[in-house]
Amino acid sequence: MANFQVNILGCGSATPSARHMPSCQVIDFRDRLFMIDCGECAQLQMMKQRLKFSRLSHIFISHLHGDHFLGLPGLLSTLALHEKGGSLTIHTFAEGVRVLKEIMAVFCRETSYEINYNVIKVDRDVIFEDHAIRVETFPLYHRVDCVGFKFIEQPKLRHLRGDMIKFFNIPVSRLQAIREGADFVAEDGRVIENSRLTTDADPSVSYAYCSDTMFDPRVAADVAGVDVLYHESTYADDNAHKAAPRGHSTAREAGRIAAKAGVGKLVLGHYSKSYDSDLPFAREAAEEFPNVITASEGLKIDLL
Amino acid sequence: MANFQVNILGCGSATPSARHMPSCQVIDFRDRLFMIDCGECAQLQMMKQRLKFSRLSHIFISHLHGDHFLGLPGLLSTLALHEKGGSLTIHTFAEGVRVLKEIMAVFCRETSYEINYNVIKVDRDVIFEDHAIRVETFPLYHRVDCVGFKFIEQPKLRHLRGDMIKFFNIPVSRLQAIREGADFVAEDGRVIENSRLTTDADPSVSYAYCSDTMFDPRVAADVAGVDVLYHESTYADDNAHKAAPRGHSTAREAGRIAAKAGVGKLVLGHYSKSYDSDLPFAREAAEEFPNVITASEGLKIDLL
Repeated sequence: MANFQVNILGCGSATPSARHMPSCQVIDFRDRLFMIDCGECAQLQMMKQRLKFSRLSHIFISHLHGDHFLGLPGLLSTLALHEKGGSLTIHTFAEGVRVLKEIMAVFCRETSYEINYNVIKVDRDVIFEDHAIRVETFPLYHRVDCVGFKFIEQPKLRHLRGDMIKFFNIPVSRLQAIREGADFVAEDGRVIENSRLTTDADPSVSYAYCSDTMFDPRVAADVAGVDVLYHESTYADDNAHKAAPRGHSTAREAGRIAAKAGVGKLVLGHYSKSYDSDLPFAREAAEEFPNVITASEGLKIDLL
Repeated sequence: MANFQVNILGCGSATPSARHMPSCQVIDFRDRLFMIDCGECAQLQMMKQRLKFSRLSHIFISHLHGDHFLGLPGLLSTLALHEKGGSLTIHTFAEGVRVLKEIMAVFCRETSYEINYNVIKVDRDVIFEDHAIRVETFPLYHRVDCVGFKFIEQPKLRHLRGDMIKFFNIPVSRLQAIREGADFVAEDGRVIENSRLTTDADPSVSYAYCSDTMFDPRVAADVAGVDVLYHESTYADDNAHKAAPRGHSTAREAGRIAAKAGVGKLVLGHYSKSYDSDLPFAREAAEEFPNVITASEGLKIDLL
C-alpha cells in the first residue's frame, strides 16, 4: 500500500512486442487501486507486480482501441473467480459499456462483486471524487474519441501549531475546523486568527495521463502544473512524419508539452514496436524538457 | 516450419498464474499454423515462440469460457495491424461468432485478411479437411457446451519399389495411381498386383485435444489409438473431489483415459493455479499410463 504511486504495467503501443505490453497503469492510492487503461494481459501484469485484485476499485479507459481495453474481459472474469467483493466502477464511453456488457453476458455471467458503469464523454469534467482524491477528464486529440485523466489530491488540512493550541487552551472539538482554516473565538469573545494557530497545508499532488494524442497545445493548458505528466511518445524524430497523421506524438513533442505546462516530471511511453531501445525517446524529449523518465513495465513512481 | 508439431502456448486453467498462461496451442503443420483455443495473451506467446502470424490459417475454439477465447479479439486486431493477408477461419459455437463480431465491430473495423466463421456444434463431425489433414470434433463433458478436436493426417501414399517399377517398365503417368493402391496392367494384358510394386504407406499420425472435460469413458472411445493425446488434468488426487462437480479431471483420470484409449503419449495440462509444481500430476497419471509428458509454455512435441 502506497500513498500515491503510479505503477507502469504496460507502455507499448498498438501491438504488444517482446519488449513492451499494451497500455495499463495502476495508481496505488492509500487503500485503493485505480487502473488507467487495460490492455491485454493487464491481469497478468497485476499479478507479477503484486497489485492485489481485492484493492482494485476504479478503472478508467481513455479510448476504445483494443490495446487500451481488451484486458478488461479477462480481468473482470478473473476478479469474479478470485471472489473479489465490494464494487468496481468502470469509467468508459457508452460504446465501451455496451460491448463490455455483451462480452460479460457470455463469459462472466455471475460476479462476486458489483460492477458499476460510469459513461464518460470527451469533455472537461470531474468523473470521480471523494474526500481524498479527484479524477478529471480533459480532451485528447486522437483518431477516435479520447480523453486524458488527471488525478488530483483534494486540498489538505493545515498543520496545527501545538504551542499555540496549548497557549489558547483550544478544545479538541474545534481543531478540525481550525485545520480547515477557521479562526478561533475564545470565551471572552477575542478572535484568534487562523494564521496564528496553523502553518500551511502540504501541497496537493497531481498526476496527468495523456495517451493517445497528437501534439496539441491545448493539452499543455489542461495539464498545467501537474507534478507528474505521462505523455505518449509513440515515435522518435526519425518517424516524426507519421505522428500527427496517426494521431500520435513524438517524444520531442511530449517534451514540448511538458515544458509549456510547467510540470514536475515527464514520463514517456506508448512506444512504437519498431524501436528496440527507449534511449532516442529520452534523449529527444530531454532536449525540450529536462526531467524525463522513460516508462517500462514494473516501474513505480512515487508522488507522495 | 515443421511437419506436424504441437506447440504449447498456455496450459494453465481459468485464471492465469505466475507459472502458466491460459489455454492455447498451435499446431505447426507444414506451411500452416492451426491454433487450438486462444486464451488471453496468445498473441504475445506466438511472438515469444516465433510462430509467424502470417502462417495462421485456422483457429479452433473448444468452448466459450474466457480462458479459451479472450485472446481472440487482441490477436485478430494485431493480425490486421501486421497486415496479414489471405484468410483465417475461426471454428466456434454460434454464440462465440456473435460476440466476436460485436467486439470486432468496435475494435477492429477493418482487417487486411478475410475472416471466415465456421459454426460448430457438440457433435462428432469433420469440420475441416484438405489433401493433407482432417480435423474432427467429438463431445466433451464440461459445465458448458464443449468439444475436443482430433487432427488426423490423411492416408498417405504407398511407397514405390524402385526395382519392380524398373523391371516392369512402368510409365511415369501410372505411378500416382499405383501409389494410391492400383494394380498395373501391362501392354500384354498381364495384371501385376500392387503388393508386388509397393510397400506399405507410412502410418497417418493423429493428435487429440481434450480440454475441458470431466472423466468420461466415452472420451476414451473417441480418442482411441491417437499418437498423442492432450487431456486436461486440472487437479491432482488431493483435490479429486472438486474435479467432477466443476466439469474437470484429475491427472490420474487423464491417465486412465489414455490407457483405455491405447494412445501413444499423454500430455497433461490445464493445471489449477493452486499447484506450485507439475510433479504430482506427472506422478499420478504415470501410475495409470506409462508415457506421460507435462505440458509447459514453450514445449514443442513433434509427431512427425
